[in-house]
Amino acid sequence: MFFDLIIKNANLALTGNTVNSAELNCLYGASVGIKDGIIEAIWEADKAQEASSSKVIDASGQWLLPGFLDCHTHLVFAGNRADEFARRARGESYQQIAASGGGILSTVRATREASEDELFEVSLVRAKALVSGGVTHLEIKSGYGLDWDNEAKMLRVAQRIGTALNIEVSCTYLGAHALPPEYSTNRAAYVDIICNNHLPKLAQLKLASAVDMFCEGIGFNASECERIICAAQALGLKIKAHAEQLSRSGGAALIAQYQGLSADHIEYLSLPDIKAMAKNNVVGVLLPGAFYTLNDTQKPPIDALRNAGVTLAVSTDLNPGSSPIGSLLLVANMAVNQFQLTIEEALWGITLHAAKALGIEDSRGSIAVGKRADVCLWPIETPEQLIVEIGLHAPTKIWSAGREINL
Amino acid sequence: MFFDLIIKNANLALTGNTVNSAELNCLYGASVGIKDGIIEAIWEADKAQEASSSKVIDASGQWLLPGFLDCHTHLVFAGNRADEFARRARGESYQQIAASGGGILSTVRATREASEDELFEVSLVRAKALVSGGVTHLEIKSGYGLDWDNEAKMLRVAQRIGTALNIEVSCTYLGAHALPPEYSTNRAAYVDIICNNHLPKLAQLKLASAVDMFCEGIGFNASECERIICAAQALGLKIKAHAEQLSRSGGAALIAQYQGLSADHIEYLSLPDIKAMAKNNVVGVLLPGAFYTLNDTQKPPIDALRNAGVTLAVSTDLNPGSSPIGSLLLVANMAVNQFQLTIEEALWGITLHAAKALGIEDSRGSIAVGKRADVCLWPIETPEQLIVEIGLHAPTKIWSAGREINL
Ligand SMILES: [Zn+2]
Ligand SMILES: [Zn+2]
Repeated sequence: MFFDLIIKNANLALTGNTVNSAELNCLYGASVGIKDGIIEAIWEADKAQEASSSKVIDASGQWLLPGFLDCHTHLVFAGNRADEFARRARGESYQQIAASGGGILSTVRATREASEDELFEVSLVRAKALVSGGVTHLEIKSGYGLDWDNEAKMLRVAQRIGTALNIEVSCTYLGAHALPPEYSTNRAAYVDIICNNHLPKLAQLKLASAVDMFCEGIGFNASECERIICAAQALGLKIKAHAEQLSRSGGAALIAQYQGLSADHIEYLSLPDIKAMAKNNVVGVLLPGAFYTLNDTQKPPIDALRNAGVTLAVSTDLNPGSSPIGSLLLVANMAVNQFQLTIEEALWGITLHAAKALGIEDSRGSIAVGKRADVCLWPIETPEQLIVEIGLHAPTKIWSAGREINL
Repeated sequence: MFFDLIIKNANLALTGNTVNSAELNCLYGASVGIKDGIIEAIWEADKAQEASSSKVIDASGQWLLPGFLDCHTHLVFAGNRADEFARRARGESYQQIAASGGGILSTVRATREASEDELFEVSLVRAKALVSGGVTHLEIKSGYGLDWDNEAKMLRVAQRIGTALNIEVSCTYLGAHALPPEYSTNRAAYVDIICNNHLPKLAQLKLASAVDMFCEGIGFNASECERIICAAQALGLKIKAHAEQLSRSGGAALIAQYQGLSADHIEYLSLPDIKAMAKNNVVGVLLPGAFYTLNDTQKPPIDALRNAGVTLAVSTDLNPGSSPIGSLLLVANMAVNQFQLTIEEALWGITLHAAKALGIEDSRGSIAVGKRADVCLWPIETPEQLIVEIGLHAPTKIWSAGREINL
């Protein structure tokens, strides 16, 4: 085979598709051959000698890792909520701030007011911050528009970000993020609009591949979420939920019952929820940035999740209110520091397991033959440093489908 | 006056020298005139029109802030300690790891083995990470050499970093960081070496302007520290200490008694310590990155410090073991999130108050006429965003003494 790119003399980590979470599946001094955006060969040590390629990079002992996947972000938004932090510092809760018109709804106002181009410009900066830290696949949710035009505007901006940065973006519709002000006295009508109007248009225009919902006391209750799930699945859209973040609201059990992709946050998960997630192959997405920012004390039940065999991913939850954090490696550090994940679990959690939370683990998330060539080269002594040492490492090269990204 | 540089149409924050910690001393749409590396004029609104300059930058409504000062770092070191994090995750304490030859002494071994050039290369990467986040003045401590040749090697590397990046570096000698292995059965002899050999050479060669010590059960006790303080002051060197981090060991009281610059960490401070610090104008340096990394629960007594009028600075404590963090804004966020500093206190804490911890507040740390022109331009809506939003902002321009830094 004649390759487009061979990366020689690299130490590889996070290879293959079979994860034993105690291991990083390393290969030392190996080479990777890429053709048509796909990893087509992996050679141990010097075995790449005979292969020919239009381009050869000598990695000189640097580490080649899969590009990270940030599988849960709300990075398309306008405005900022710095003022809320002062309110929280004075003792107000996230729920109190939301109830008084702050929180999500203040971002809804700013996002609705922004033009599509303005929204693109401010959001692109955030996406660049993530990519500069080794992220090559972004999930981006809508949810600050809450009417069709503005939800569609957000999703088009998310797609434009992928095009502009030459990375893949998974778009997720999150109309059920908050009740829009114009429906504040008519919850059922807004759920009707989502199910009968937004979801069919979404599927027709292919603006999103998955549907998310905020199943929570201050969001939508389990029976409202179930209506949305059924409508989404009837249209062939995948499902996931913000579940058990601030209370046990039933979201994880619903996602398990309907065999969705992931239940995210999951601080207040119960044992039956965990069993249902394990049985139905639902990924648990940990969002320690929100836990940190909100000074939460209820941690997700990591030991029980681990013992039950639930796949755990880690994501930034990048959003203006509860997790304004533009570094996936920082939240991976938080997952270890705050939730007692192991370093290895954290690294799989932002690669293969994050891919599974998006339903793309067969073709993304690790270094393996046949997978998309989303890889980053890191000038480090050991991959554990990426989790342990914060803000000190940046990739020397980033490739998305074998094409080098220059930010 | 004919200026070297005028920065026009900027919003200024952290101006002047009189701090009311509830305010950021902002000036909107102002201009700054720089000559010979010094801020020589500040004009409100359009008043800069008549001044002439060899170069004019239109800041177009961006924010101009003083460059940040990271007033407590150990960023010159070799090796990494990723393995220790796994040990801590399994429940071992920082003290246990130190007692078994890990901790500081493992970094001492790696730092001694590194050549000066190797040490410079790996340390420069860390300094660049800080500068790229808006830091224009770095304090760097020795303390991983513990014999004269290696302590001097570290301090020369610190000075080379300043030259290479065109920023100011304050060098601090920290021979009393840990007992070197070769003196493990003879504590008094090592303190003798520090006082009678290292300190005089240091003063003669001007390798450091201040002397620090680790006053702690696993470091040096108060009477050992007092010997070092007296020897340092006799040579005209300034003093500061790692004090009350893991226990109340008496460091803060000593620094107050001898009117040193700062007491750093100060989690276990008592009320008499606080009064002594206030009375003697000792800065309290908060190091929330170490608190975070070590999962500490004992917070510094912020309310009592604030009420007593102690000046509070914030720093990374960048080091391989207890605070491997290369972002001053991240630890400023942690100071707010974990220690309940206000956002304004955090911003003063990494500017004017950090300058005071280094004894250079008269000429550094704020935007004021007569001060060194260390300033950064930020594309933000409000300065509070820098503290609240993590990893999402980078300066568009950085000047050190009026010279633009390109990393
Ligand atoms: Zn979310
Ligand atoms: Zn320190």
